[in-house]
Amino acid sequence: MNASEALRKLGEERPLVHHLTNYVTVNLVANVTLSTGALPVMAHAVEEVEEMAATASALVINMGTLDPPWIEAMIRGGKEANRCGIPVILDPVGAGATRFRAETPEKLLSEIDFAAICGNAGEISTLAGLDAEVRGVESIGGDAKTAVVKAARRLGATVAATGPTDHISDGERLLTVENGHPLMGRIVGSGCASTAVAGCFAAVGGASPETVAAALACFGRAGEIAAEKADGPGTFEPRLLDALAALARDPSALEDELRIREASVG
Amino acid sequence: MNASEALRKLGEERPLVHHLTNYVTVNLVANVTLSTGALPVMAHAVEEVEEMAATASALVINMGTLDPPWIEAMIRGGKEANRCGIPVILDPVGAGATRFRAETPEKLLSEIDFAAICGNAGEISTLAGLDAEVRGVESIGGDAKTAVVKAARRLGATVAATGPTDHISDGERLLTVENGHPLMGRIVGSGCASTAVAGCFAAVGGASPETVAAALACFGRAGEIAAEKADGPGTFEPRLLDALAALARDPSALEDELRIREASVG
Amino acid sequence: MNASEALRKLGEERPLVHHLTNYVTVNLVANVTLSTGALPVMAHAVEEVEEMAATASALVINMGTLDPPWIEAMIRGGKEANRCGIPVILDPVGAGATRFRAETPEKLLSEIDFAAICGNAGEISTLAGLDAEVRGVESIGGDAKTAVVKAARRLGATVAATGPTDHISDGERLLTVENGHPLMGRIVGSGCASTAVAGCFAAVGGASPETVAAALACFGRAGEIAAEKADGPGTFEPRLLDALAALARDPSALEDELRIREASVG
Repeated sequence: MNASEALRKLGEERPLVHHLTNYVTVNLVANVTLSTGALPVMAHAVEEVEEMAATASALVINMGTLDPPWIEAMIRGGKEANRCGIPVILDPVGAGATRFRAETPEKLLSEIDFAAICGNAGEISTLAGLDAEVRGVESIGGDAKTAVVKAARRLGATVAATGPTDHISDGERLLTVENGHPLMGRIVGSGCASTAVAGCFAAVGGASPETVAAALACFGRAGEIAAEKADGPGTFEPRLLDALAALARDPSALEDELRIREASVG
Repeated sequence: MNASEALRKLGEERPLVHHLTNYVTVNLVANVTLSTGALPVMAHAVEEVEEMAATASALVINMGTLDPPWIEAMIRGGKEANRCGIPVILDPVGAGATRFRAETPEKLLSEIDFAAICGNAGEISTLAGLDAEVRGVESIGGDAKTAVVKAARRLGATVAATGPTDHISDGERLLTVENGHPLMGRIVGSGCASTAVAGCFAAVGGASPETVAAALACFGRAGEIAAEKADGPGTFEPRLLDALAALARDPSALEDELRIREASVG
Repeated sequence: MNASEALRKLGEERPLVHHLTNYVTVNLVANVTLSTGALPVMAHAVEEVEEMAATASALVINMGTLDPPWIEAMIRGGKEANRCGIPVILDPVGAGATRFRAETPEKLLSEIDFAAICGNAGEISTLAGLDAEVRGVESIGGDAKTAVVKAARRLGATVAATGPTDHISDGERLLTVENGHPLMGRIVGSGCASTAVAGCFAAVGGASPETVAAALACFGRAGEIAAEKADGPGTFEPRLLDALAALARDPSALEDELRIREASVG
């Protein structure tokens, strides 16, 4: 599904998108979700996580701030979403940065069928079994193209590595997205937010490489628009929400601005 | 108490307002509290929740992100506030969305005497025992007027249902508030924030329908002012805090702008 | 180390700064950290807190929202940072406001060697064993100058009390900082954010009184710049991040604007 079609459906259907996410960027994630037209909900208690997941149209699991009760909530919510046929998206924040962050995504991946996995190049390289340097929750390089293809094949999901160029693959096709702006890397949570947009798009359009690429391109385009009026990272963040909401309200001119290309898996 | 009097007292007395609230909108809630002139404090540990509640002038309990340890903190804090004669305000976020969110408000309401309860129409309908559709934490309709009167009678508290028109009742009187702006529904947490303002007003003026309506009208008026300079939901949120702080600093012209009306309970 | 040198090193080395902080202001703390050039990471689980602390260049412990599992994480992370020779900074938010907030800093101080402790005058007075009024997490006065010197001698660390004038001492020297703007007191988390900047500076320059004063002066200077374009507390906060990021990108003119003075310990 392309971006304008996804945004139109989000505005019409207003699907519930359930987030099990970190407490650092949760407010941005919620506002980004709402700005696409979807309705965000955060509910982590084991007493309700399955019931809430079952009423949602997508579940986004973000590993930003992990601990065992949250991992249990993620597994319960993810399994229930799988049972209900609801797409589950993973943002493996900081994968590989500690032993705990190496083991946890393996555990999640063994218990839950993810429709898509979106992270930075270092995180995706870790999941692909490649060497990568992850310092804290920041990626310090890694070959994104190789990583997404290998991770997609290994994990049987659409995998995206975000960065100045986003790479998206399902193991057979490879798409690249060139939309975005350097200020996106100067705010905390732009990665979480881009995964949230992928979750919203998946709620109405599934998680094919085309749809995940459309989500990342749309979010990147919002970043380009926001940067025009921003004086730095602080004013960029509210402008990013403004831009995303404006695109969602009127996506008619959006497609011409998206720089999505098919590349060779090679 | 009317809005300008409440804001003047908040600026003079700077009362402590204790919030047991969700981690999604907690920063907005804290900043809204501070912008009214009150001092926000968040303290949930059972080791201190009662002592902190006892030093506060109001306690606001928001169910946004629930789990059992937090429910215990809410009950302990609420009971201690009751013992001390401090008004306790409930925001029943997502009431009815899951079984856990149906049972928890009943439990809180059975253990704590709430001075006021502020939610959206769906949540208040749920508390009134009426049918309502609550999707995640969003209300999808419900007859707000009937709900607030019925809930107020059932629960023995001032009850407000916020929306394009806010309805406030103590079971005998019914007030409506027409202030506000559609952008308030496009940011995450405007409901939590309006309940926080009601909590601040309660700290200096109690929780009569008049005072709760004044709080909601004042917050709605801030939204109207903020919308004039906002380019979308992202820039609206900081402008909302600016507007609220400006009204708090100089509430002299505020009353003329508030659209609070007495309506028939019917 | 002076402020411009610290910012240059932060931009070159991009050190990891690990925060164990509260969920109210965590997003601001993370964005402030990133705006100085450092990379923020938040990881509180006992399964990884020590490993993450060991990979960081500074650890900032903020008591804003306390509970026993977090205290355990703070102690584990702090001890590991001590073992690795990584500076640990404490923000004793609300110290003295409840019995729990009186005992917890004593416990942390007995288990961890802090390189610097940054709080408001009331919190620092509490740690110095002086009488102070702390209402919730707000200081209501206290003699900052006496408090920092006494606390520094008692605790064997650089101690800073922030306010309209910041006071910084290691027990022998006393520095004052006059940079800042009243709007900093009108947003939630400016204290947490200033401690975060001190943590970033400590990551590259240690925690001498000179370096802590440089951090507070730099943050205060960002506040002065931000205030020029702000219309109130809401628009001030994003402008503060813009200003801090601009100073970090080009610190060449910064030193002339900093008002740091040596004072008599008396």
